[in-house]
Amino acid sequence: MKLPGQEESDLSSASENVPTGELDSGPGSGLSPDGPLDIDSRELEVPKDPPLFIQLNELLGWPHAPEWKETGRWVLFEEKLEVGAGRWSAPHVPTVALPSLQKLRSLLAKGLVLLDCPALSLQELAEQVIRVESLSPELRGKLKALLLQRPQHLIQTPCISPCWGKRPSLGPRPKSLGWEDPRSPLTFLDQQWPSMAQTSTRDSRNPRRQKFPAGAEAGAVLAGQLGFLEQPLGVFVRLQDPVVLGPLIEVPLPSRFFCLLLGPPTLGRGYHEMGRAVAILLSDLQFQWRVRRASSLHDLLAALDAFLEEVTVLPPGRWDPTARIPPPKRLPSEHKRYLRGHHAIEILPVLRKGSGGGGREERGRPAFCWTLSFTIRRRPGPCGDVRRKASWYPSDFLDALHPQCFSAVLYIYLATITNAITFGGLLGEATDGAQGVLESFLGTAVTGAAFCLTAGQPLTILSSTGPVLVFERLLFSFSRDHSLDYLPFRLWVGIWVAIFCLVLVATEASVLVRYFTRFTEEGFCALISLIFIYDAVGKMLTLTRAYPIQRPGSPTYGCLCQYPDPGVDLYPTAHNPILDDLSTQDLGLVNASLLPPPECAQRGGHPRGPSCHTVPDVAFFSILLFLTSFLFAMALKHIKTSRFFPSVVRKMLGDFSSVLAILLGCGLDAFLGLATPKLMVPREFKPTLPGRGWLVSPFGANPWWLSVAAALPALLLSILIFMDQQITGVILNRAEYRLRKGAGFHLDLFCVAVLMPLTSALGLPWYVSATVISLAHMDSLRRESRACAPGEAPSFLGIRLPEYPVFFLSLSPQFTKRVQLLLIPAKHQPDLLFLRHVPLSRVHLFTAIQLACLGLLWIIKSTPAAIIFPIMLLGLVGVRKALEWVFSPQELLWLDELMPEKERSIPESGVEPECSFSGSDSED
Amino acid sequence: MKLPGQEESDLSSASENVPTGELDSGPGSGLSPDGPLDIDSRELEVPKDPPLFIQLNELLGWPHAPEWKETGRWVLFEEKLEVGAGRWSAPHVPTVALPSLQKLRSLLAKGLVLLDCPALSLQELAEQVIRVESLSPELRGKLKALLLQRPQHLIQTPCISPCWGKRPSLGPRPKSLGWEDPRSPLTFLDQQWPSMAQTSTRDSRNPRRQKFPAGAEAGAVLAGQLGFLEQPLGVFVRLQDPVVLGPLIEVPLPSRFFCLLLGPPTLGRGYHEMGRAVAILLSDLQFQWRVRRASSLHDLLAALDAFLEEVTVLPPGRWDPTARIPPPKRLPSEHKRYLRGHHAIEILPVLRKGSGGGGREERGRPAFCWTLSFTIRRRPGPCGDVRRKASWYPSDFLDALHPQCFSAVLYIYLATITNAITFGGLLGEATDGAQGVLESFLGTAVTGAAFCLTAGQPLTILSSTGPVLVFERLLFSFSRDHSLDYLPFRLWVGIWVAIFCLVLVATEASVLVRYFTRFTEEGFCALISLIFIYDAVGKMLTLTRAYPIQRPGSPTYGCLCQYPDPGVDLYPTAHNPILDDLSTQDLGLVNASLLPPPECAQRGGHPRGPSCHTVPDVAFFSILLFLTSFLFAMALKHIKTSRFFPSVVRKMLGDFSSVLAILLGCGLDAFLGLATPKLMVPREFKPTLPGRGWLVSPFGANPWWLSVAAALPALLLSILIFMDQQITGVILNRAEYRLRKGAGFHLDLFCVAVLMPLTSALGLPWYVSATVISLAHMDSLRRESRACAPGEAPSFLGIRLPEYPVFFLSLSPQFTKRVQLLLIPAKHQPDLLFLRHVPLSRVHLFTAIQLACLGLLWIIKSTPAAIIFPIMLLGLVGVRKALEWVFSPQELLWLDELMPEKERSIPESGVEPECSFSGSDSED
Repeated sequence: MKLPGQEESDLSSASENVPTGELDSGPGSGLSPDGPLDIDSRELEVPKDPPLFIQLNELLGWPHAPEWKETGRWVLFEEKLEVGAGRWSAPHVPTVALPSLQKLRSLLAKGLVLLDCPALSLQELAEQVIRVESLSPELRGKLKALLLQRPQHLIQTPCISPCWGKRPSLGPRPKSLGWEDPRSPLTFLDQQWPSMAQTSTRDSRNPRRQKFPAGAEAGAVLAGQLGFLEQPLGVFVRLQDPVVLGPLIEVPLPSRFFCLLLGPPTLGRGYHEMGRAVAILLSDLQFQWRVRRASSLHDLLAALDAFLEEVTVLPPGRWDPTARIPPPKRLPSEHKRYLRGHHAIEILPVLRKGSGGGGREERGRPAFCWTLSFTIRRRPGPCGDVRRKASWYPSDFLDALHPQCFSAVLYIYLATITNAITFGGLLGEATDGAQGVLESFLGTAVTGAAFCLTAGQPLTILSSTGPVLVFERLLFSFSRDHSLDYLPFRLWVGIWVAIFCLVLVATEASVLVRYFTRFTEEGFCALISLIFIYDAVGKMLTLTRAYPIQRPGSPTYGCLCQYPDPGVDLYPTAHNPILDDLSTQDLGLVNASLLPPPECAQRGGHPRGPSCHTVPDVAFFSILLFLTSFLFAMALKHIKTSRFFPSVVRKMLGDFSSVLAILLGCGLDAFLGLATPKLMVPREFKPTLPGRGWLVSPFGANPWWLSVAAALPALLLSILIFMDQQITGVILNRAEYRLRKGAGFHLDLFCVAVLMPLTSALGLPWYVSATVISLAHMDSLRRESRACAPGEAPSFLGIRLPEYPVFFLSLSPQFTKRVQLLLIPAKHQPDLLFLRHVPLSRVHLFTAIQLACLGLLWIIKSTPAAIIFPIMLLGLVGVRKALEWVFSPQELLWLDELMPEKERSIPESGVEPECSFSGSDSED
Repeated sequence: MKLPGQEESDLSSASENVPTGELDSGPGSGLSPDGPLDIDSRELEVPKDPPLFIQLNELLGWPHAPEWKETGRWVLFEEKLEVGAGRWSAPHVPTVALPSLQKLRSLLAKGLVLLDCPALSLQELAEQVIRVESLSPELRGKLKALLLQRPQHLIQTPCISPCWGKRPSLGPRPKSLGWEDPRSPLTFLDQQWPSMAQTSTRDSRNPRRQKFPAGAEAGAVLAGQLGFLEQPLGVFVRLQDPVVLGPLIEVPLPSRFFCLLLGPPTLGRGYHEMGRAVAILLSDLQFQWRVRRASSLHDLLAALDAFLEEVTVLPPGRWDPTARIPPPKRLPSEHKRYLRGHHAIEILPVLRKGSGGGGREERGRPAFCWTLSFTIRRRPGPCGDVRRKASWYPSDFLDALHPQCFSAVLYIYLATITNAITFGGLLGEATDGAQGVLESFLGTAVTGAAFCLTAGQPLTILSSTGPVLVFERLLFSFSRDHSLDYLPFRLWVGIWVAIFCLVLVATEASVLVRYFTRFTEEGFCALISLIFIYDAVGKMLTLTRAYPIQRPGSPTYGCLCQYPDPGVDLYPTAHNPILDDLSTQDLGLVNASLLPPPECAQRGGHPRGPSCHTVPDVAFFSILLFLTSFLFAMALKHIKTSRFFPSVVRKMLGDFSSVLAILLGCGLDAFLGLATPKLMVPREFKPTLPGRGWLVSPFGANPWWLSVAAALPALLLSILIFMDQQITGVILNRAEYRLRKGAGFHLDLFCVAVLMPLTSALGLPWYVSATVISLAHMDSLRRESRACAPGEAPSFLGIRLPEYPVFFLSLSPQFTKRVQLLLIPAKHQPDLLFLRHVPLSRVHLFTAIQLACLGLLWIIKSTPAAIIFPIMLLGLVGVRKALEWVFSPQELLWLDELMPEKERSIPESGVEPECSFSGSDSED
């Protein structure tokens, strides 16, 4: 939510208790242990050092027509003026040749350094600057005129003269000065620095000005070769108060630093490179921090030396010095830099633990236990949940009015409707028609309303699909096999589940979730994914049974309309075995026509023949539609991360990819007008199963003891619901999503418990958290810091979760990566951090065990013993525990995470992957 | 074909005439002006400096059990030992902190430097090394023992003691020493240095040894902290003769350099970093070159300082110093480095012009004119072609026996067969059935044989598709509209084309190809692509006409088998208008059955009804098959560039992707057994059109003057063939393909000219170069330098051309990129070189003009005026000429290339894009 360098220095001020060595309040970022959960408190702090915009004006055209031209600019990264193309380059990591830095150092050492210069305008500043001893009065005049010359920016703007010499005021400023280039990524929006925006006075009429946070300062670097100089001239000025130096800077920001590097033309482009070196130095946070506090030339040179101490050197033969390095995804930690600078290599685990935030998922470690232990330890139980959530309830409803929620609402609607389409049939299958589309929608409405009004995390979407549906199918086939009355039996199961869940809530069993390590989580996620994919593809393929494909040999030719004329009806119409095999039988003399079946029936005839009831082309067309909409949605999703189109269009296409794909599919279907199967929405509000009322009778045809025996399947279902609900909750509440409203593990389970008997009594589907949909929904709601410095990655980067269950496997990214590793030869394997620390054979062994567990679960799900699969799912925890005999704690730390009791047994100073997980190899 | 660093220094020796300044025979790479065409001559040279393998052994475990452990190794890039995982890291650009280099410098300055040390074994070397003044005799003994201690390599090998102290001999060496890691990318194959492999004596029994070229040397760096030392110890040794230093180096290479950096444990890992710094220095070619020739400590330090002068500095706050940078795709030019080192910024265009080679295409400039002018200027005319090619004819047939050609042969077969399938129908359409599958195959055989036996470039595949087919279609419809006898008319066209082509050959018109700049080439390629795609998709969609889709309302219900029983046949069977509209008519009393149509006919009945002749499901199934095989082939293609599977499997899957996709499609089709349309291969060897003989009569039903009038369309066709044939030839002979056998532009055209009347007289399709297929074929034949140093990209990287016409557009990569730019907002545009130099609006204008030309060509092709489209194609050259009024020469140089006469008018010292095209921005 801030300039990133900014954030680093913010954080430093939030951690006064950090041992920082000799520089007491240096820009090291001591992260508070609460990490991602105290964003609010951090936002209230004002950064110490304002952000700095640095501009390099180069003196070109000497000796004929010398003029200043802006050729480079820096905030975090460098942007270079492409002179020929008349545009700014893409932001890139600023690199500089070592000699330029060394030459700069010697030039500054013998040059003029003015710290806290009291100049109030460019003119006053120029007066100060030209007082260099080596210059003759004549040269001083020339130089001053040159300094006051209007520099040429990329977009020449009409001068509203006199436009320099003014102090920053609240009045209107030259409006068109500065950034007109569409490439300009300096779109610092106000909302990025809300606290600053509110506390500062600013000129709201100047749109360019608003791109920077209030308080932002500029640094002006002027460099070039000047023929009349006899020896190099180096001036470095830190102004006492930042001053708008006329048109020197393309954006009317007040300047804090001014640097002039001129010399005779012997050095060629050397001055330009020195100018770049100064700009790079000033854009470095630590250098900036030191120079802002420097009191002498010595301090300035010390800051430069400290910078040199830290630079990384690229060997010339292995790296083209003119190649532009794109900005890294994550900037190095200023805190680490600080520690390294002071030779304190060990990083305090306490400091690192909470620093997860945006990058956590990328680093491969779910913030699982931290979030959970945080929420649970502080205010246990559902009452704690209620207290924590209470203040957020009004905002839940207010937030829904935010325009960003529109696509989310549309998405939920579509998710529900496609669920009803895809799984409505399965639901009906599972309950032999007791639950159809109407029940599905009704259930969504009831549970949705109940959850919105009372539950902990309104972001969880409830659904009747996934493992619970699998269980229901098993339950139904069990009751059918034993000739039980299903709905009453189900009612009792529901009641028992409610009781068990209430017990789980009362005993605060959610705390047990801590034993679900990534191993368990990955196994569970993978199983749900497989069930999803299997069901979707299976449903697709059953179409070929409903709409058989007509092969040349298949007896599907012929359909004629036969009229019931008793005189010629040689064959009785009803149950005539001969007529049933029409294809090989002569009809003889019949009164028949070739009318299409519907028309035939209208005219009182009977359609006869094997092809009367087949609908050709539908099966293949449905598969084509399935493929088309899938591929189209995928393509749209990819557009979101591509370079094409403006980002608004891109985001729109990405967010609405499923909607657009569904519309495309429907459009194609409507265009061709084939009789593809459609969702049959009932016209009357009544239960799907004919003959049952809305209320399920408590016993029906079942014996009384079944209501007690239902406790056994209920126990299994409770385990399943507990795992499904809790794992979804934990994933949703991961730190990288930066949810503000906290989690409600107990409360959510409580809500599910209350809803179970209700839905059972009404014969509605059972609803629990739908992991896939919830996460996709989360994705559509995510907020990125849109505004950042040029080249910087948006600071909030959650995982981009595609909305398709095929990619649900991306929920367990490390697992997916490890499975892929099985197929990648060692030579080509990506540079994954755990591969640096765990031998490949051990990694493969771990993956193989996980795959074996998954296979076992799948097999159990497909056998008659299927009904116990929730227990087997829980068995994953046991397998994980047993792994401690096979793998060392260090290996488990890299591949999984430690179980609660083990976690304490590892000494803090030991190998701690969290510490090494900043996208780099920090073990050196 | 060589170690890349190697190649650079090779080249230096080939350019004695280059002004090199103070270092006469320095490692600057002066490229010879003949560039890519004299690879052979370059390969014969022996490199001056042998390649160097550098290993860092670190002293670990002090004070308890000190032992040497190999923790890093370098050839071009750095590989680091991942201690925990027990594997080598991926190769990466070696980076080092500046202080390490500075500390190393001061340590060496006061340390022991032995140049041309005459030691013959590790023991002798150790004796020399310990004679440092500061050491007491006791310490010397300790140190010597330590130095002779066997170092621990990644794979511990059984020691065949005494295994050190021996000079390199031809006898068996400890075989298992060294590289057992499967990740080891040091697979230097012998064929990479054929000249060296032949001239050197080498131990053929040691497989590890063979990975390095003969003459390769090693550098051993030993570093670490040693408790008993009171002050740091730095020793640098250059051995007089390279010596195998026992087990010091993991591969038994003779060592040339030895460096020891030890000290008291105050510096921590500082010695390790200094050791890395030495290794990085030694792996730098220029440093190595200087140190090999150094005669004093001063020279050594000067080499280090020269290195420091050139290093690039990454600012600490913008780049994590511990992040590993993957190896760049191309190494910086040592020549440029050399020039930069000597402040000679301007690069001589003469030197750069020919340096294209592998990277040319990537840099966006086809080597078009260079290849052509080379081949044409030296030996003009077809006779020159024959003389040049004569020596290669035997090898053409021998090369065909190379196993790599198998997939190419299979590919050609499939290309022909799929062409026959896809375009056989079109061919038949174009000639109203005069040419079918048999003619297509016969034509391929005849022209293929003729070309193989006589033509210039056997890599060109001839085909009857593309623009010539379009022209034939136009010609046919013209002759049909004017009631001409087509085949005789076509014969005369063929004869005239032959005459025109022979004139073109005789006048050496191929030289005119120089006027086809990239602008023309791109327009032509794009047009062919569009025709290809349009025809393929069109052919696909016509299926829905042949096999109509049965919609619910469409009158396709009903089919019954009616028997000709005169007693009950109330309606006469022939031409009964009532029976024809069966769907709305009662049949009344008929003798009918529901037998499928074939069976009905067998039994003597007549199938009646609208659905008797429809085949359901075929249209959609065909589209599904089309999509499936396309997507499958694409997926297999992608596997080739993915990380999965060993590279042999990957290459196999990629090369055979089309075969496998076709097999999959056929398998699916056979599995479902639908009556999809199949290619009807005639069983008899006779012309497709009934009633015509193999020889076409010269006049037929046409008037005599038509044989003269045929000259007009023949002129148009000649232009088309000339452009098609020549542009294909030029693209195939681009420098980046490094064809060894030279081009035969005149000869190829001559062959086509001879074949034209032959195919016309026999009524076979006209065959000319098929650009798409030829290039795909080329791709399957391409040879990559499989062996290279770790992390280095294979040195021969042609463009990877997918085999599908959809991606034929990739033939004009810059055009495709520019079209994409129209959709990409300026902010997100990739960092393309021409964007750095040409304003975006000008780039867009250029693209728009190209698109307009393309649209115009397409429109002309679709109108009645279509027959003149070859002239319009030639008109592209005129448009390009006119562009000189719109764009400046500099802009055209970046976006296109210059036309012959303009090329000379641009001063050599002007902006020369070729110079800036080494993948980086060299304008600074």
